[in-house]
Amino acid sequence: MGFDFKEISPYDRPKAAKTTNAKKGDVMTNDAQANQLPHVVVIGAGFAGLAVASALASSPVRVTLIDRRNYHLFQPLLYQVATAALSPAQIAQPVRSIVRRQKNCTVALGEVVGIDAVHKTVRGHAGEIGYDYLVVATGAAHAYFGRDDWAAVAPGLKTIDDATHIRRRVLHAFEQAETTEDENLRRALMTFVVVGAGPTGVEMAGAIAELARHTLRGEFRHVDPAAARIILAEAGPRVLVAFPEKLSNRAHRDLEKIGVEVMTGKGVSDCSAEHVVMDGETIPCRTIVWAAGVKASPAADWLGAAADRAGRAQVAPDYSLPAQGDVFVVGDTAALTDAKGRIVPGLAPAAVQAGKYVGRVIHARVTGAAPPAPFVYRDDGTMATIGRGKAIALIRGFGFGGFIAWWMWGVIHIMPLVGFRNRVVVAIDWFWSYLTHARGARLITAPKDKGADL
Amino acid sequence: MGFDFKEISPYDRPKAAKTTNAKKGDVMTNDAQANQLPHVVVIGAGFAGLAVASALASSPVRVTLIDRRNYHLFQPLLYQVATAALSPAQIAQPVRSIVRRQKNCTVALGEVVGIDAVHKTVRGHAGEIGYDYLVVATGAAHAYFGRDDWAAVAPGLKTIDDATHIRRRVLHAFEQAETTEDENLRRALMTFVVVGAGPTGVEMAGAIAELARHTLRGEFRHVDPAAARIILAEAGPRVLVAFPEKLSNRAHRDLEKIGVEVMTGKGVSDCSAEHVVMDGETIPCRTIVWAAGVKASPAADWLGAAADRAGRAQVAPDYSLPAQGDVFVVGDTAALTDAKGRIVPGLAPAAVQAGKYVGRVIHARVTGAAPPAPFVYRDDGTMATIGRGKAIALIRGFGFGGFIAWWMWGVIHIMPLVGFRNRVVVAIDWFWSYLTHARGARLITAPKDKGADL
Repeated sequence: MGFDFKEISPYDRPKAAKTTNAKKGDVMTNDAQANQLPHVVVIGAGFAGLAVASALASSPVRVTLIDRRNYHLFQPLLYQVATAALSPAQIAQPVRSIVRRQKNCTVALGEVVGIDAVHKTVRGHAGEIGYDYLVVATGAAHAYFGRDDWAAVAPGLKTIDDATHIRRRVLHAFEQAETTEDENLRRALMTFVVVGAGPTGVEMAGAIAELARHTLRGEFRHVDPAAARIILAEAGPRVLVAFPEKLSNRAHRDLEKIGVEVMTGKGVSDCSAEHVVMDGETIPCRTIVWAAGVKASPAADWLGAAADRAGRAQVAPDYSLPAQGDVFVVGDTAALTDAKGRIVPGLAPAAVQAGKYVGRVIHARVTGAAPPAPFVYRDDGTMATIGRGKAIALIRGFGFGGFIAWWMWGVIHIMPLVGFRNRVVVAIDWFWSYLTHARGARLITAPKDKGADL
Repeated sequence: MGFDFKEISPYDRPKAAKTTNAKKGDVMTNDAQANQLPHVVVIGAGFAGLAVASALASSPVRVTLIDRRNYHLFQPLLYQVATAALSPAQIAQPVRSIVRRQKNCTVALGEVVGIDAVHKTVRGHAGEIGYDYLVVATGAAHAYFGRDDWAAVAPGLKTIDDATHIRRRVLHAFEQAETTEDENLRRALMTFVVVGAGPTGVEMAGAIAELARHTLRGEFRHVDPAAARIILAEAGPRVLVAFPEKLSNRAHRDLEKIGVEVMTGKGVSDCSAEHVVMDGETIPCRTIVWAAGVKASPAADWLGAAADRAGRAQVAPDYSLPAQGDVFVVGDTAALTDAKGRIVPGLAPAAVQAGKYVGRVIHARVTGAAPPAPFVYRDDGTMATIGRGKAIALIRGFGFGGFIAWWMWGVIHIMPLVGFRNRVVVAIDWFWSYLTHARGARLITAPKDKGADL
């Protein structure tokens, strides 16, 4: 980006610059007053970062919200972009538009490369910005457990670009299968391997199965897309291990019903452009989707903070760093066991709760009020979707599956979408897909020089 | 693509390959019968190509429809993608899905690089395919009138990639203007020049003006997007020259009302990454959109056919090539004056009419029926939209503008969208934009290595 953070915030500008226009007198006074206020810099406009910023809307602070993308992404639905059901814009909303009414919040587009905790500055590619309080909410990326060379052949699913990349690979595989004469190649092209049976892996496998068995039916003349093999590989003993065994088993059966081969207890020992090796067995395939693990963004490194095995910073009960009380780490970048002894999970609701909490902590610090009680994660329930009409849910110890769970999953995932229009349009898209199996975003788009990436 | 066209069509496969599976006996007989049928190869799945293919649905022919993209694009709404109002998938539909029920039609994804009219074959990157009848409907590209070096700094608007590229540039310009300290640079970033005041140029200029004046209002803290300069440069004497002068003038006034500076009679003599030169005047700017001219795809070259100045093949009154009666050129790639002496315009309705006509011509040839009468273009009216509530229309000599023209424009442009869902969703998007000025697709998406293209 070549971004100069010095230029981002009005608060860091030399005062001289403010005297150039006499007509702006009143505003200048306000600006000058505003400049006295503590500066809260939030890195990352995901669920946690946005929650912090909006929790500070009425606080006597200036907020600068930095992200390297111009949009907030509703990550729980990203797999629907990867499988051509939704368009990127339907699950992404410009950050500026979300905070447009919050006058104490400035948005900066740029990438952070480091943090200087001594001088209290955030470094961008070509400059830096000072802070009084810093909130790091930079999320997580894929973890290949030391095999980073697999990233090229087994893309993960964290960004819009990841999703359109996977969409392109999956759709291209069917196109190539339609045209090849080589039976072995065709079989490899029609084999899709999803590694990792957490919620993302289960959703991806289920959605690829539906794409093959229903959406593409009747569209090819030489191959039957329904003959595609969709393999869900899981090193652990069962799918969706965060759920009770009974629900896991139900999800397992549901996956098999919609045509996914579930292989539990099978560790992946090699990935290449032509095959995956599981438990000694080599399976020729051309599309691998990685959903086996995440590691936190390098924020703990930047901060010199203690981190757990997944790279998440160890934080105090109020999400501050033990050694740097004016720095907070929140969301998927932080590791915390809450006041009730439960590990805060890497889920969107937890990130929102933690973000709001950190907002309250900072508000208390700047106003001198009593700090809030230590953070307690409120588990409103977790759910995972498997496919059309199939999901499992666990709400306050009550587990159930089937159509009702799926319907609830849909409502719960549509409601938080930013913007009324997106809610309506996504609901229509889903309802239409449900009726017809059609998927509305089956575009193979790529810059021309990228056309040969398969 | 590295596509082997030999592999595309079942009809070109060696017969031996068909005897490998005894169970397929019945199908083989049908296949064998089908293989006797004349093979019609259609290159290009735009309006003209799709119309040819679907007009042959009940004819005793085999159709192979080749396109280098997997989707049909509704080009008239492409500017809405470029200005963040619609998502790419809302104006694009997979070709396979459009022709899925037409069993005599095979779709092939691949790029054509040449035609061998002597051996009646189409050449792809790595192979070829034979034809009995060939229809070339490969459309048009931008024309820079000998200054192809301008293409990099003044992108045109023909493909989804063009549209997302322009969207990225426009949105990035505001982001950069927000963060720079350099007043001259800021002014240049906030200057948008659209070259060419045909329908596309007028639509682009109007939509950028709305984006700046309404959509982005209140979202920036250091610049006022409404202060952006949007310049529409036209070398000719007036905008929308295809319309009567009175309507042109109305469009001119409407453009000025929504904040577009219309500069007619100003030829562009230079474009660079930092400025545009018009009529001797240098205007610093960072975003130029090229809407000044098109040239046909190189089909006439491939065919060794006579072409007009814009590269369009000169065709006989039935759209065949005078020297090669089994080759047809149709749509924006062809130049024809119809039986009533009118030049067939480069518009979607004309392409559809001509495509259907060519389908009838080929049907008559293969069935031995009498050929249809020479083609006559039916002008159902033309319209151009300027902005929210503003458009002009000319229908059977009756010209009018304003809200009714705009509303008609909307209905006429929603109805042909392929797929009921797209119609509903685009209608909702538009209605919502009309009420709120919001634009739903304001994403700056780019592959990482492309992030610095500005």
